[in-house]
Amino acid sequence: MKIAVLPGDGIGPEVTAQALRVLEALSLPGLTLFEGDVGAVAYRRHGHPLPPETLEMARAADAVLFGAVGDFSCDDLPRHLRPEQAILGLRAELTLFANLRPAAGFPGLEDLSPLKPEIARGIDLLVVRELNGDVYFGDKGERDSAGGREGWDAMSYNEAEVRRIAHTAFRAAQKRRKKLTSVDKANVLETSRIWRETVIEIAAEYPDVELEHMYVDNAAMQMCRSPGQFDTIVTGNLFGDILSDQASAVVGSIGLLASASLGERQTEFGTFGLYEPIHGSAPDIAGQGKANPVAAVLSLAMLLRHSLGREEEANRVERAVAQVLASETRGGDLGGTASTSEIGDAIVSTLLTI
Amino acid sequence: MKIAVLPGDGIGPEVTAQALRVLEALSLPGLTLFEGDVGAVAYRRHGHPLPPETLEMARAADAVLFGAVGDFSCDDLPRHLRPEQAILGLRAELTLFANLRPAAGFPGLEDLSPLKPEIARGIDLLVVRELNGDVYFGDKGERDSAGGREGWDAMSYNEAEVRRIAHTAFRAAQKRRKKLTSVDKANVLETSRIWRETVIEIAAEYPDVELEHMYVDNAAMQMCRSPGQFDTIVTGNLFGDILSDQASAVVGSIGLLASASLGERQTEFGTFGLYEPIHGSAPDIAGQGKANPVAAVLSLAMLLRHSLGREEEANRVERAVAQVLASETRGGDLGGTASTSEIGDAIVSTLLTI
Ligand SMILES: CC(C)[C@H](C(=O)O)[C@@H](O)C(=O)O
Ligand SMILES: CC(C)[C@H](C(=O)O)[C@@H](O)C(=O)O
Repeated sequence: MKIAVLPGDGIGPEVTAQALRVLEALSLPGLTLFEGDVGAVAYRRHGHPLPPETLEMARAADAVLFGAVGDFSCDDLPRHLRPEQAILGLRAELTLFANLRPAAGFPGLEDLSPLKPEIARGIDLLVVRELNGDVYFGDKGERDSAGGREGWDAMSYNEAEVRRIAHTAFRAAQKRRKKLTSVDKANVLETSRIWRETVIEIAAEYPDVELEHMYVDNAAMQMCRSPGQFDTIVTGNLFGDILSDQASAVVGSIGLLASASLGERQTEFGTFGLYEPIHGSAPDIAGQGKANPVAAVLSLAMLLRHSLGREEEANRVERAVAQVLASETRGGDLGGTASTSEIGDAIVSTLLTI
Repeated sequence: MKIAVLPGDGIGPEVTAQALRVLEALSLPGLTLFEGDVGAVAYRRHGHPLPPETLEMARAADAVLFGAVGDFSCDDLPRHLRPEQAILGLRAELTLFANLRPAAGFPGLEDLSPLKPEIARGIDLLVVRELNGDVYFGDKGERDSAGGREGWDAMSYNEAEVRRIAHTAFRAAQKRRKKLTSVDKANVLETSRIWRETVIEIAAEYPDVELEHMYVDNAAMQMCRSPGQFDTIVTGNLFGDILSDQASAVVGSIGLLASASLGERQTEFGTFGLYEPIHGSAPDIAGQGKANPVAAVLSLAMLLRHSLGREEEANRVERAVAQVLASETRGGDLGGTASTSEIGDAIVSTLLTI
C-alpha cells in the first residue's frame, strides 16, 4: 500500500504530521509513504505549484494524503502558477471526479452551528460534488466584444460524466438514509437539463433510493432553513463548491471536516483517491501549534475506508476523534488551550484504547 | 404616471390586489393603471406566458408591478412556454439589469430567522444582482460528444455590463453603510476575472465606499456564519440567484421580502423598473385568502421610491407595514389568523394615520 503525502503550505504540514502519527499508531503492515511538494512551497522550490515529480508520485500511489495549499507569497502570481492550480491539476490529471463532503455535527459540539439548536440538531448530510467537469474545466478566455473586454467560460456536462457521478451518489445514498437530492438549475441551463435527465435515467437502477430534484437557489435556502431534510446531495462542480461550503458552515465546524476526492481507478484495496481537510492553509496561524489536526485525521479515516479498504480502522479513528472532541482536550478554535500535537497525542492514546 | 400591473398566477392576484389598495390610499395624482396577463394564465389565454401585448404594456409604462408566475398546469410544458420564461423575457426585453434584493429582519420578527438570535440580530444587507448577462442569457444548447448527449451553456461578462451594475451597486452602498462586497469565482473563471478587474476600476470613482472581494463559496459560508458583516453585495446573475435566496433564508421572512429589477431607462420621475415579491405563486394556497400581502406591498414601496420618485410615500408605506408586522394582525405564515385582505385593511388604516 503506497500513500503519497503532500503536506503543502501553511498549517498543512503540522496537521498532516498528526494524521501520520495516527496512521503509524495503527501499525498497518506493508505500508510505504512518499512525500512530495505541492502549492506555494513547490512553486518556490521547483517553479510550479504541481511539479511533475509530485504528480507522478501521486499517480503511482494508492491514495494521496493532502494538507492544504496557499500562502501570502502567492497573491501576485499569475493564475496558472497559483497554489489552487495544484489542486485543480491533481483533480484533472488523476481523474478525481467525485468529491465526498460529509457534514454532520459532533456530539457535544452542536453549539458550533450558527443555527438554532433545534434546527442544527438533525444535520447529517453528504455532498457528492462532481469534480472534473462543468464550468471549471471547459474552454475559457478573454475576447473583445462591443462591450469591451469580455471574459468567457464554457459550462457543460455530458451523459457519461453525469452517469459516473450519479452512480457514486446513488451508491453512497444506499449506505446512508437512501434519499438523494440532485441539485441543478434546469429551468435555465441546458447543462442542467442533461444533468437531470441523466440522473433520472440512472435512478432506475437504484429503486431503493428516493430521488428528488431541487433548483440550486432553493437548495441554498433549504440548507439554511432546514438542513436536516438532506441525506445525500449530488450536484455539479460549481454548485457543489458553493453548497458543500455552505453545508460546512451550517454545521459550524469548518475546521473539523474532511473530504475525499475519488478517482475511477480501482486499486488492489479500494478506490484511488485524494483526501484533505476542507479548511485551508491558514497562513496566519501556521507554525504556531494552534491548528486543529482533527480534519486531517478524519481525512486519513476516509483514506483508510475508501482507498485501503480498512473500514474497521477508519471507524476506530473516527471514534477516537469523536471521543477526543467530546473531552476536555480542545484547541483554541473550540475555546480550549490544547496545541496541535496535544490533540494528536490525545487522539493517538484514545485510539490505542479502542 | 403609468403603472403596468401584472398579477400573474397563484397568489399573485390576491397579494397584488392589496398592494393596489395601498396605492389607492395614497391618492397620488395623475396615476393610470393598466392590467396585463402574464405566466400560466397568459399561456392559457394567449398561448404564451409573455404575450406581445403584455410586453408592450410593460414597455410603455413607468413601472411594472408584478405578482408571481407558475402553477401546476405548467409542469409538463416545454421550457420556452413555461411561466418562468415570462420573467426571464421581461428582464431581457426591458433591459432590467439590476436586481435589488434587500434582506433585513423586521422588528418583533427576529425569531423567524433559523440563525441563533445573536447572529440573526445584525442582518441588514442588500444584494445587487446583475440580471441581463452571465450564463443565463448566453448561447446554450445540446450537442453530441464522446460522452453522449452534452448540454452546454456559455457564461460571460464584458466590461460594459460590469460597469453598469457596479455603478448601481456603489451608489446603493453610498446610501447605506458604504461597504460593498463583490462576489465572484475569480480563482477559476475568466468571466469573474473581468468582473473583478472592472469592479476595481469603477471603485476609483467611489472613494467613500470600502470595497472587498469574496469568492462565492466563502460568501455562501459567511452568509450563514455572520451575515451581519455584509452591507451591500454585488454579484453576477447566477451567484446572485443563489446568494439572494440564501440571504432571504437567513433572515427567515421569505414571505415578506420584496425586490426591484431596475432598467437603464430614466422616466420622468425616476428609473424604469419591475417590482415583485420574492415569494413565488404558491399555487397550493391560492384563492384561500391565506397569502400574506406584505411582500407585494413592500414591492409597491420600492416602486414608489425608484420609479416614481416618491421617497416620502415609500417610507410611509414601509413604516405602515412595519407597524402592522409588529402588531397583533398576523397571517397564518406568522402564527396568526388574519386573512390576506385583513392584513391589507390593517396596512391601509395604519397608513392613513402616518
Ligand atoms: C481553490 C478552489 C479552486 C477550489 C474549488 O473551487 O474547487 C476550492 O474552493 C475547493 O472547493 O476545493
Ligand atoms: C425562475 C428563475 C428563472 C429565476 C432565476 O433564476 O432568475 C428565479 O429563481 C429568480 O431568482 O427570480
